[in-house]
Amino acid sequence: MEVWLTEKHSEDIALSYRVSKTIFSAVSPYQNIDVIENPQYGRMLLLDGIVMFAEANEFHYSEMISHVPLFVHPRPRRVLIIGGGDGGTAREVLRHPDVERIDLIEIDKMVVETALEHFPSIAETLRDRRVNLTFQDGAEFVRTTEKRYDVAIVDSTDPIGSGEKLFERQFYQNTMKCLKTDGLMVAQSESPLFHPKLISRVMGDLKSLFSIVCLYCAFVPVYQGGMWSFAFASKKYDPRKNFRKDKYDSLQLPLRYYNECIHYGAFWLPTFVKGIAE
Amino acid sequence: MEVWLTEKHSEDIALSYRVSKTIFSAVSPYQNIDVIENPQYGRMLLLDGIVMFAEANEFHYSEMISHVPLFVHPRPRRVLIIGGGDGGTAREVLRHPDVERIDLIEIDKMVVETALEHFPSIAETLRDRRVNLTFQDGAEFVRTTEKRYDVAIVDSTDPIGSGEKLFERQFYQNTMKCLKTDGLMVAQSESPLFHPKLISRVMGDLKSLFSIVCLYCAFVPVYQGGMWSFAFASKKYDPRKNFRKDKYDSLQLPLRYYNECIHYGAFWLPTFVKGIAE
Repeated sequence: MEVWLTEKHSEDIALSYRVSKTIFSAVSPYQNIDVIENPQYGRMLLLDGIVMFAEANEFHYSEMISHVPLFVHPRPRRVLIIGGGDGGTAREVLRHPDVERIDLIEIDKMVVETALEHFPSIAETLRDRRVNLTFQDGAEFVRTTEKRYDVAIVDSTDPIGSGEKLFERQFYQNTMKCLKTDGLMVAQSESPLFHPKLISRVMGDLKSLFSIVCLYCAFVPVYQGGMWSFAFASKKYDPRKNFRKDKYDSLQLPLRYYNECIHYGAFWLPTFVKGIAE
Repeated sequence: MEVWLTEKHSEDIALSYRVSKTIFSAVSPYQNIDVIENPQYGRMLLLDGIVMFAEANEFHYSEMISHVPLFVHPRPRRVLIIGGGDGGTAREVLRHPDVERIDLIEIDKMVVETALEHFPSIAETLRDRRVNLTFQDGAEFVRTTEKRYDVAIVDSTDPIGSGEKLFERQFYQNTMKCLKTDGLMVAQSESPLFHPKLISRVMGDLKSLFSIVCLYCAFVPVYQGGMWSFAFASKKYDPRKNFRKDKYDSLQLPLRYYNECIHYGAFWLPTFVKGIAE
C-alpha cells in the first residue's frame, strides 16, 4: 500500500508527499500534531495537516527568519521568539554569540515535546540555558510583558485558529512596545503567490507603526508555490543598509542558505511582489 | 466528480491541480500534449504529463529566461531560441527593439499549433514577421547551421526523451559555435533542489567551453519545489557586471517579474546552490 499525505494549498492546488512511515500523531489542546517520514525530505512536522517543515530543507526558512534580523542589529542580546516551538529558529539565533537570552513563547507545549522527541537535531537547542520557554499565547505575552528586546521574531503558523491573532495590527503594536528604542522585528508573512492581500494588509499595519518596513523573500520548498515572504519592521536600522559585514566575516557560521549576497538580494523583489509590498 | 491532475516531482513528492476542464489532449510524434484548466492558475500546458506553464504565472519563467541575457548583450539583433514552441520566450524577446530576427527551433509542430489555438495571448507573437519558425531537432540545428547569433536561449523540456540531447556537452559546444564572438547563451537548467548533479555537470561542461559561466535562479511556482535555475554562458559579457541600465530605463517594459534589482539579485545564490554551481 502506498500512503500519501496531501496538503491542499487552496481548493485547487495540492502538494503530496509519500509517507514511508507515520512516526507520531496526537491531538493537543490547540491542534493536530503529526510527524511523518518521506523518503526524499526526511521527517516532516505537520500542524493541523499543514507541513511546517521537512528535515531536508528546514534550513531555508530557519536561516532566513533568523540571520537577516540578527545580522542587522549591532548587538542583539535579548531575542523574543513568538511561536517557533520546533526549535529551528532558536538554533539559528543561538549561533550569534551576542545573544544572552532567548524568550520563546510557544502556545502549545506538545509542539516542543514532539520536536524534542522526534527532531532532536532541530530542537536540542531548546535545552540551551540561554533559552527560556514559556507556554503561553504569544499575543497575550506581548500585551502584558514588561520585558524589552533587541529583536523579535514571529515564527507563527498560518493565520488560522490560534495563529490568527499573530497577524493583527494590535499584535504588531504590542510587539513594537516590547522592543527597545533601536529594536527590530521579523514576522513570517505567507506567500506572495497565494496571500497577496494578507501581505499588503500586514505591510500597511507595520508601516503605520514602524519607521522602516520592508519585505524579503526566500525559496521554501514545502510552502505554497515555493516562495515565502518575511516582513521586516525596524525602529532604527534599515536592513538594506545595515548588514554587519565585520561580524558576518568573523563568525564564519556554517550556514547552507543565508550569506552576504542573499542578505541584500532577498530584499530585491520581483516586480509583482513589490506591488504587493508597497 | 472532482478531477485532479497529479504530477510526480519524484517517486515521493507530487504536485496536484484540480482540473475544471480538459481543453485538449493529443499525441504528437514526440510526446503527449494536454491543455487543462485550473480555477486558480488558468490554462496549463503539459508535455508528457509534466506542467510546462500556467497562464497565471508563466511570466516568471518567460521573463527570467529572456530579459537577463537581452539586458546584458549591448545589441542583440539575432536571437536563437531552441524549444520554446509555446511562444512565451519569443514574446519577451520581441519586447527588445534591437531584435531584428528570432530563429525559433521547435522539434514538435503540434506544440506551436496547440499554443496558437489555446494560448493566444502567449503564442500570438509567433506570428510576428521577425519570428522564423523551424520544426527541427534543436541539437541537429546547431550542429549543422552556418548562422551566427548574438544570443541563444535554450528553452527546453526536462532532460527526458527528445529533450535529453539539449543537456549534453556536445550540444552546448555546437551552440557556442553558433554564437558571434561576443555572443552569449542561457539554458534552463532544472531545479537545484531536485537535480543538483545535473546542474553541476551542466556548469562543468559550460565552463570547459565559455570564459564566463554562472547560474541564476528564479521562483517558478509550477516547477519542482518552486525554485528554478538558468545557466548563463558568455564569450565576452559578464551578466553580473553588464546590465544595460540605460536601455532598461529608456524601454520601460511592462514586466511583472524582472527588474534591475532582480537582474543582479538572481545571480546571488543561496549557499547550497553556490556549492552546486561552482
